[in-house]
Amino acid sequence: MAKPKKHVLVCVQGRPPGHPRGSCQDKGCAQVWQQFSDAFAARKLWESGLQLTHTSCLGPCHLGASVLVYPEGVMYTGVQPDDVAMLIDQHLLNDTPVERLLAPAEVWA
Amino acid sequence: MAKPKKHVLVCVQGRPPGHPRGSCQDKGCAQVWQQFSDAFAARKLWESGLQLTHTSCLGPCHLGASVLVYPEGVMYTGVQPDDVAMLIDQHLLNDTPVERLLAPAEVWA
Repeated sequence: MAKPKKHVLVCVQGRPPGHPRGSCQDKGCAQVWQQFSDAFAARKLWESGLQLTHTSCLGPCHLGASVLVYPEGVMYTGVQPDDVAMLIDQHLLNDTPVERLLAPAEVWA
Repeated sequence: MAKPKKHVLVCVQGRPPGHPRGSCQDKGCAQVWQQFSDAFAARKLWESGLQLTHTSCLGPCHLGASVLVYPEGVMYTGVQPDDVAMLIDQHLLNDTPVERLLAPAEVWA
């Protein structure tokens, strides 16, 4: 392994039903993670210098599912499984963040 | 919350006994995580613009416990609970990476 060009962090935090903060798990993050994981394997993204890790809480629980890309520090919220291919094609492979999914300034600015 | 000045990622990955890759859990990462978590609360590091998250595998399992700091992308290996205060004081609060704990170039360069 080497220091990655981009490191994708996918929140997989869960909380009990009725918890006031909610969680990314409530918003389907397990499927978002699976899409990333499958795509990294199928498209050999690890071998292309990208890295993928799942995490505890990244912060904007009420807007999840949350995905954070470093080193640029771009946070995405409201990510759905169908968004993953676009995040890979536009941002990870073409360095163009997906505007539609950017976290609002009140949570990440 | 806001985009953090520094984001500390602590691997808490476990693997079954005898697994060839080993894991950071084998190397005491739970105590490393606890030290960071306690210090973030006691020293109000969240309020100082730092962020702390635990993660799945960060890569250099055989050299764990692994701690990664973004946006600079500095990877530490072999981190012990007693190292946490120095990582906070020198790197997080004074922007000076702790040379002694830097991951070797063969795993992160």
